[in-house]
Amino acid sequence: MGEPRFRATYLIETAYPLADAAAALAGEQSTGTFIRLPGETDELLERHAARVEAITEVEPVPTPSLPGAGRPKGADLVRRARVTISWPLATIGPSLPNLMATVAGNLFELKQFSGVRLLDLDLPPAFAEAYPGPQFGVAGTRALAGVEGRPLVGTIIKPSVGLSPAETAALVDTLCEGGIDFIKDDELQANGPHCPLADRVRAVMPVIDRHAQRTGRKVMYAFNITDDLDAMLRHHDTVLAAGGTCVMVSLNSCGLVGLSALRRHSRLPIHAHRNGWGYLSRSPALGFEYAAWQKVWRVAGVDHMHVNGLRNKFSELDASVIASARTCLAPMFAPPAPGFAIMPVFSSGQWAGQAPDTFRMLGSVDLIYACGGGIVAHPGGVAAGVASIRQAWEAAVSGQDLHAYAETHAELRQALDQYGAA
Amino acid sequence: MGEPRFRATYLIETAYPLADAAAALAGEQSTGTFIRLPGETDELLERHAARVEAITEVEPVPTPSLPGAGRPKGADLVRRARVTISWPLATIGPSLPNLMATVAGNLFELKQFSGVRLLDLDLPPAFAEAYPGPQFGVAGTRALAGVEGRPLVGTIIKPSVGLSPAETAALVDTLCEGGIDFIKDDELQANGPHCPLADRVRAVMPVIDRHAQRTGRKVMYAFNITDDLDAMLRHHDTVLAAGGTCVMVSLNSCGLVGLSALRRHSRLPIHAHRNGWGYLSRSPALGFEYAAWQKVWRVAGVDHMHVNGLRNKFSELDASVIASARTCLAPMFAPPAPGFAIMPVFSSGQWAGQAPDTFRMLGSVDLIYACGGGIVAHPGGVAAGVASIRQAWEAAVSGQDLHAYAETHAELRQALDQYGAA
Repeated sequence: MGEPRFRATYLIETAYPLADAAAALAGEQSTGTFIRLPGETDELLERHAARVEAITEVEPVPTPSLPGAGRPKGADLVRRARVTISWPLATIGPSLPNLMATVAGNLFELKQFSGVRLLDLDLPPAFAEAYPGPQFGVAGTRALAGVEGRPLVGTIIKPSVGLSPAETAALVDTLCEGGIDFIKDDELQANGPHCPLADRVRAVMPVIDRHAQRTGRKVMYAFNITDDLDAMLRHHDTVLAAGGTCVMVSLNSCGLVGLSALRRHSRLPIHAHRNGWGYLSRSPALGFEYAAWQKVWRVAGVDHMHVNGLRNKFSELDASVIASARTCLAPMFAPPAPGFAIMPVFSSGQWAGQAPDTFRMLGSVDLIYACGGGIVAHPGGVAAGVASIRQAWEAAVSGQDLHAYAETHAELRQALDQYGAA
Repeated sequence: MGEPRFRATYLIETAYPLADAAAALAGEQSTGTFIRLPGETDELLERHAARVEAITEVEPVPTPSLPGAGRPKGADLVRRARVTISWPLATIGPSLPNLMATVAGNLFELKQFSGVRLLDLDLPPAFAEAYPGPQFGVAGTRALAGVEGRPLVGTIIKPSVGLSPAETAALVDTLCEGGIDFIKDDELQANGPHCPLADRVRAVMPVIDRHAQRTGRKVMYAFNITDDLDAMLRHHDTVLAAGGTCVMVSLNSCGLVGLSALRRHSRLPIHAHRNGWGYLSRSPALGFEYAAWQKVWRVAGVDHMHVNGLRNKFSELDASVIASARTCLAPMFAPPAPGFAIMPVFSSGQWAGQAPDTFRMLGSVDLIYACGGGIVAHPGGVAAGVASIRQAWEAAVSGQDLHAYAETHAELRQALDQYGAA
């Protein structure tokens, strides 16, 4: 066994010999500088250096994907490879911020590379001991929302900005009346002067409570508490005191240390919005695969994480969306360490139409299925919009064709007519 | 004047008409969804919507820089433009995390674009009232370090990892003896079990104090306190209690909320390491220009920020390095609001040789000039290494040729011989 290590797998692109390039990455991220130094003994290198564990060449590219890379004399090929590097855990201890500085620090701009992308991480169970992980995850979220055996049908308060607390509460009333399971603030609506968080909570929660008394189920509302730390904790407490059951945070705005501090304080599920993910991922040669990125946030303790949706309004392909969602549900550690499974959140251009493919490709109903216009702009109104989503998932799970199922389900029929050509 | 607004300028790349693409970005980041909703009145749009302020077309590109973009029928050109968007401050209030969710949220993956890069930000003075900004900046750092009229000559403890606290202290002793002004931990060395922060502080500070009694100047040591929040604040207090004068944080590992919480607690200069900057910037069509990115951290309150160095070991060009350094020194707000100028930190492959160009291109000595091998591997030893850097800056500032100046300065001569061919 030996000392525990953590591993990172990259897609690299380089005009240098692959073994040399991989060694440069490992060197830079452990003991390296541009010249070997007096204190750098062989024994120190052996004990502390990162190690290249595996190099698997994949197809080359005709030209460098990113500018600024070097090219050795005579090199006429830009090679690509999947490279796994490992580090002794004892170098950093189980500290997520220092993990990030190690596996995703000064390496993306190394001259040896015209591409570096972090594909995956493999963390030893020490991280599950040092961090709390998700407090609610899939099962806890279902229990709080009172929804079993199907996705949580969700929506986003729209317009993104501009509604007052009273207008928000009126919309929530309509949504609860319509049978929604989950509502979230838009990521652009947090605590602005036009709709302060505390006022919004005060306006919304009595509405949710009133419907909960009627139905026996409390609609889960993810209040966007993204802010500086003191404000964020205060907002959390406001939501908790008002009987709210979820808080939302923009991960990239907040950062790892802030999220971690919130998690250790929180008594509510943390709904993690990934806005900004595009700048971390859209260049295929650079940045992060979701598989690597989401692991860090799960260890820190989020409960729900956005994965985009099929046929979304963004540039992401369906296969990538499903791959992301699968990673949220896959156990992070082998038993007896916890699995840390969390709810993937599907959203962006979602309506009834994507349910069958989502279920077929994901193979699970453990997800939040969030529709904006797909519910609120349904021609039969919000209740009909919610019904259309539930019907679409009934059809999906029971393996029936959506159009056939719509023959006996009017709301689904209307949805297909309204959005089907979109 | 009207209500205060904040502005973001982007480089966009699109096959759609520029005005339509810019409007899509503004819409997505304020009131938009994929279909106009019942509550979305004209008055609400007018009051809350983001506004396209300017569109300046620049040269087109032959093919899309990033995958996944749409292309309208018949479009045969991929246009590029600098686009400025503004938002009413009242939408979010002066909150940095919510600023980021707005100007750098769900927009980099919009289908309209094959490239979106945030070039610059223009923030109203309300941000300087809501946030403390740099506590020490250029003047405070100089006062603490006792260095005026020239750059702080700095170095990095290398090897990056593997030295014990006692070995680190021994190296610090040599460096102080050699006349160094500034020392920093490597970003890979924070609080690992082989060299715990508290032990390192306990070993290093008496050495620094001993030399301070001899010289009257206390060498500034930036202890890397990157960690979860509680640990980070505890580490800060440990450094402060031991008489240390600087703490270092990896910005991207920590995040905005964590950094901001540290700043409000801190009584020491915050040395900000930008490791990970490559994944935010290396694709020219995506992510951030340093000009935009550094402003957010300055408002949050860092005092020193890394900018790479001339002829560095990374892929960044010299012009970009200097542009970054200039932004650190440029006032962020017009008087009477504070300027928030901070120290740019030059590092990566630095030695005496880059001093003249650095001074010529930057036009200032307000910087930290950090050399690793450029000092520690000097053939005459550390003191000679430090001397060579000071001599190079003397030559630079007095406008003398480096080789000519070396004729009467042996340490500089040795440096030119040692590193000059590198």
